Amino acid sequence: MRIAELSRATGVPAATIKYYVREGLMPSGVRTHRNQVDYSEEHMNRLRLIRALLDIGGLSVDAARDVLTVLDTGASTARESIGGVLYALGGRRSPVGRHEEEIATADVEALLAGRGWEIHEDSPARRTLIDVCAALRLLGHADVVAEMDDYATASQSIAAIDLGLVRAEATIERMAETAIVGTLLGDTLLSALRRLAQEHLSRQLLPDEAPVRRRPAE
Amino acid sequence: MRIAELSRATGVPAATIKYYVREGLMPSGVRTHRNQVDYSEEHMNRLRLIRALLDIGGLSVDAARDVLTVLDTGASTARESIGGVLYALGGRRSPVGRHEEEIATADVEALLAGRGWEIHEDSPARRTLIDVCAALRLLGHADVVAEMDDYATASQSIAAIDLGLVRAEATIERMAETAIVGTLLGDTLLSALRRLAQEHLSRQLLPDEAPVRRRPAE
Repeated sequence: MRIAELSRATGVPAATIKYYVREGLMPSGVRTHRNQVDYSEEHMNRLRLIRALLDIGGLSVDAARDVLTVLDTGASTARESIGGVLYALGGRRSPVGRHEEEIATADVEALLAGRGWEIHEDSPARRTLIDVCAALRLLGHADVVAEMDDYATASQSIAAIDLGLVRAEATIERMAETAIVGTLLGDTLLSALRRLAQEHLSRQLLPDEAPVRRRPAE
Repeated sequence: MRIAELSRATGVPAATIKYYVREGLMPSGVRTHRNQVDYSEEHMNRLRLIRALLDIGGLSVDAARDVLTVLDTGASTARESIGGVLYALGGRRSPVGRHEEEIATADVEALLAGRGWEIHEDSPARRTLIDVCAALRLLGHADVVAEMDDYATASQSIAAIDLGLVRAEATIERMAETAIVGTLLGDTLLSALRRLAQEHLSRQLLPDEAPVRRRPAE
């Protein structure tokens, strides 16, 4: 199909498609003898994946390229491929003081040791978790950090569903694609489900009137 | 304290602090008789909250302003205040065809009805969930949509922890602040925990060798 057709089928403007090609997010179309550029079904699928990563996953164009590169490079095992995707994304950083960083590192090490989770030294998720704990403590929310093990229990149930979906795939390529899509779109899916569950539970659990003051405000 | 001191204490450049004041994220300091601007402990706490929302929560400056406005306006009940925060953030949108949208809407309605979750018609999380389901189906991942009820069960456990933290606060202001910080930084905390749990479980569950082909690849 020509670029105008591809644009119509996906709702992505032609100029944007060309931009994704220039940025290395998708291969260019094939130049035919009539001096036209031809796009295939594969281009259409890739374009849909790109839009899902950007719009739903909230990734930047650079982050999407990193993820798609891992997907295109291929890996010899499913575990490698998933590790590649997760590690390619890196983590969020927020500079805090050295004191907060030390305490937060101890928080995370205690959690991992307690659960017997073996995590690679370079894991970006470990770094992110340390940063979140440091920020929470700095904001006076050690109470949230204290619930981390219960949050981890729920997260482990979620990860078990994730890996079940990956294992059900027949080929290594589909496994990698499921790991990417499931993890990134899954973040948005899970945060939406959490908000809906909060709304549902808050009707039952949160009082309609102002709370009784039980201890002095901080 | 003067702006240079505030900047040193938080690691945020003075020009950035002034930018946040101009953008309405924090009140300006108080001009003293010596023609200096004075910042208080409250400014420092607000600045830390702003950085956590931007750096860890991944919010844009506009989204952070919306959230902080809800926090500053105050609400008469905890539930109102939390609803205000969650609704202020809106949801992610990705345009899909009308056909996908109808099927995805049915997916989400069936989930909510099945669980007995009462959700407001205008809930941005409901819209987000519909968009994620539509994108997943478009990408050939109806398998992920099929697991949504199990994901919802885990999300409900998470929301119960969230609301427990909010209820433990003594004042309506602290409740609102905990709802904001816990929900937004919590998204990053939970996505990090999910990745760590995936890494841990993938060592046990995913094969080191290429998978056996059980059914034709799609």
